[in-house]
Amino acid sequence: MNLTMSDTKQKVTIVGAGLAGALLSVYFAKRGIDVDMYERRPDMRKAEAGAGKSINLALSTRGIHALKEVGLYEEIKKISIPMYGRKLHAPDGTLTFQRYGKDDSEYINAVSRAELNKSLMDLAEENPGVKIRFNSRCTGIDFSKPEVYFHDDVSSESFSVKSDTVISTDGATSAVRMEMMKFPRFNFSQLYENYGYKELTIPAGKNGEFQMEKNALHIWPRGNFMLIALPNLDGSFTCTLFLPYDKELGGENSLELLESRDNLKSFFSNHFHDALELMPDLEEQYFSHPTGTLMTVKCFPWTTGDRVTLLGDSCHAIVPFFGQGMNAAFEDCTYLNEMIGKHGDDWGKVFREYQKIRTHDTDAIADLAQENFVEMRDLVATPKFQFKKKIEAELHKLFPSRFVPKYSMVTFSRIPYSVAHHRGKLQEEILDILSHGIDALKDVNWQEAEELITSRLEPIGELE
Amino acid sequence: MNLTMSDTKQKVTIVGAGLAGALLSVYFAKRGIDVDMYERRPDMRKAEAGAGKSINLALSTRGIHALKEVGLYEEIKKISIPMYGRKLHAPDGTLTFQRYGKDDSEYINAVSRAELNKSLMDLAEENPGVKIRFNSRCTGIDFSKPEVYFHDDVSSESFSVKSDTVISTDGATSAVRMEMMKFPRFNFSQLYENYGYKELTIPAGKNGEFQMEKNALHIWPRGNFMLIALPNLDGSFTCTLFLPYDKELGGENSLELLESRDNLKSFFSNHFHDALELMPDLEEQYFSHPTGTLMTVKCFPWTTGDRVTLLGDSCHAIVPFFGQGMNAAFEDCTYLNEMIGKHGDDWGKVFREYQKIRTHDTDAIADLAQENFVEMRDLVATPKFQFKKKIEAELHKLFPSRFVPKYSMVTFSRIPYSVAHHRGKLQEEILDILSHGIDALKDVNWQEAEELITSRLEPIGELE
Repeated sequence: MNLTMSDTKQKVTIVGAGLAGALLSVYFAKRGIDVDMYERRPDMRKAEAGAGKSINLALSTRGIHALKEVGLYEEIKKISIPMYGRKLHAPDGTLTFQRYGKDDSEYINAVSRAELNKSLMDLAEENPGVKIRFNSRCTGIDFSKPEVYFHDDVSSESFSVKSDTVISTDGATSAVRMEMMKFPRFNFSQLYENYGYKELTIPAGKNGEFQMEKNALHIWPRGNFMLIALPNLDGSFTCTLFLPYDKELGGENSLELLESRDNLKSFFSNHFHDALELMPDLEEQYFSHPTGTLMTVKCFPWTTGDRVTLLGDSCHAIVPFFGQGMNAAFEDCTYLNEMIGKHGDDWGKVFREYQKIRTHDTDAIADLAQENFVEMRDLVATPKFQFKKKIEAELHKLFPSRFVPKYSMVTFSRIPYSVAHHRGKLQEEILDILSHGIDALKDVNWQEAEELITSRLEPIGELE
Repeated sequence: MNLTMSDTKQKVTIVGAGLAGALLSVYFAKRGIDVDMYERRPDMRKAEAGAGKSINLALSTRGIHALKEVGLYEEIKKISIPMYGRKLHAPDGTLTFQRYGKDDSEYINAVSRAELNKSLMDLAEENPGVKIRFNSRCTGIDFSKPEVYFHDDVSSESFSVKSDTVISTDGATSAVRMEMMKFPRFNFSQLYENYGYKELTIPAGKNGEFQMEKNALHIWPRGNFMLIALPNLDGSFTCTLFLPYDKELGGENSLELLESRDNLKSFFSNHFHDALELMPDLEEQYFSHPTGTLMTVKCFPWTTGDRVTLLGDSCHAIVPFFGQGMNAAFEDCTYLNEMIGKHGDDWGKVFREYQKIRTHDTDAIADLAQENFVEMRDLVATPKFQFKKKIEAELHKLFPSRFVPKYSMVTFSRIPYSVAHHRGKLQEEILDILSHGIDALKDVNWQEAEELITSRLEPIGELE
């Protein structure tokens, strides 16, 4: 590795000890760089987890790759549950299984956000150079020094930290990014979906057993809304209901109209009968949980001066419908680490190259995630979609180096998101042509398929 | 007019006495509603105008309509100069004229931002119910009361104002909008062009005469950059140079590389020879003027609670390439006034309907303005564009109720911007089809034209 570090000991300040910050600190520790991390919340390993924030995640190839790079995957694997596909729940209770990958070797992993974060903090602190200070809310930053200002909400003490380098991993409402907005020519957008979400729990059975198929991501696709469920280690499932806020968009199926207990019960009974049976305390849960929002954040630049950069949700928060938010943030770490490998502690160069390579890809996954919402809540349930999935699987077998399902490119490979987005569109056009007016695999014009694929899709490199 | 006002005397607070705020205050005065207006800057009627802000505007039909509604147009007309079309300056000095409208009855009006603003303030203050307090910088707002907080930067006094209603016309960097960003589900984007601008002046001749054609908007289109010039009442022209910031985008024609005096002189000599001859003090001007940025702002909602709304640049700042920024803000006043006519002082209803109708249109003019940059700096100079303009004019004569040039819909009518945007695209497709592979009007397939137009374009209402 062509690593050129200055002789002087480096110190990096990380703002935010969430998933991305905690993982990133280990990357730095492995390079012998000291890290001081400041986290707004109390130590979650000692306190109750805050409610309302999405508590289930789907760890897949990009995230796993990063964890492996720093030797953490084996530990994290212990708290993960493989999910091999989607288990669709029809309104009449009929179950259908849609495999994610080509076979049981391709799966995504349900993991608890809190457990993962706690593990990453533990593993980070095993490195003597990594320190975490909690209850430290970032209140501002002087980019020129750089110096970060914090307020300790417990001790009511304000303090500041000077540093060689600052990396802001403080999430979708990043305080550091807010300060960047004061700079001229800072491009920024935050866009909310007209949908909110409620988290609900299906408890474990009497003997701690899973009350539905354990190794699947459950979906109740209902067109304009949906319920999903992911398994937890203790036998329970965390469910998330995604629903339009207003009746203008959702009609009678909107958060606005579920505010009455009667409506809630009949809504669940009509649309999610089998889930309702497993949630005896639905009402209590529903009315005590906050409604979550769904936001996409894009911005540019990520880097200010030569010393400060954003990473993860702080520069590219996305909606959860491709299960890639955490994976994208972990992949940021992979790319940033690669740039440090190339340019050592020439941080200006490191940060500029990292943002240059990475922004196209994070813009792409933001768009992919928004597009996948329609697929999850609506299309997956349609015969047309299911038929196209069959053709897709067949084409992947026939042309493994050229035709890779979009879901696989995003989830089971490290092909840049922007490439996956672009090729996904080309492939969708091919699928539309091939599936037009037919409904059986035997009617597919395979000759035409070959011509379309070889003319439109260049071979891509080996998948991971 | 179905106007239902409460018996109690209403008071409206307007934040910002720029063009939109000043005009809006007159609308309220005409309805017998008192207005207190607060302006961050000192009274520009007593102080020097600040440099750097675009000082020339193009007043057209939408803006004129609003001025007429409140009886101000005759006064403003006195400080306006009609521009009947574009005067293109080729690199070799050749001049070409491209008419904007169908004849001399259709023109846009060059007007000085400062003079217009001063006149509007004078005219506003003629109404006893309208008061303006200067040097009052908005520092915050409590939306629930509503109460606005100000700081007087001259007296160093802080004060607050309670009000029935607050309308924020404080421009692209609106303080009120910044506060709205703290609300959940506030959608917001600010996007900067990779181009900046410099304002320069071509002075009047020795006897106060115009040194170029007075009644035209002058353009030096140069592909990736351009210079434009608008006439002033004193015989001078205000020129604006639009150029990429970085050499990565602009090559040797970028702001970055003009920082040296030698480069500046040779750049102007190569590309704007005729303009250079009229600017003896180019260097002095160039290096003493700030570089302006070009930003598009979109947001939603504009209205918070029932009492506070945004208007003008504060909710839809756009780039200047369609000459519609001020016209769009003035048209906001027309729409808002119409809603007050319908709903009286039911401000919640007034504001919600105003934002509902208006946001589609302001999103559309934002996009139109960005698209028109390419047209102005590049396309206008191409034979293809000029030929399509000829076909367009011919089609407008043949099908006056169906085919109205996009420029005319935006500039010479009050057709909603969103309709103009949509129809503009349909028309562009028709022009592409008809102009394909030919270069003379006699070769146009007029039979095909009729079929395309009658099948694709419904008749629209009477143009203003």
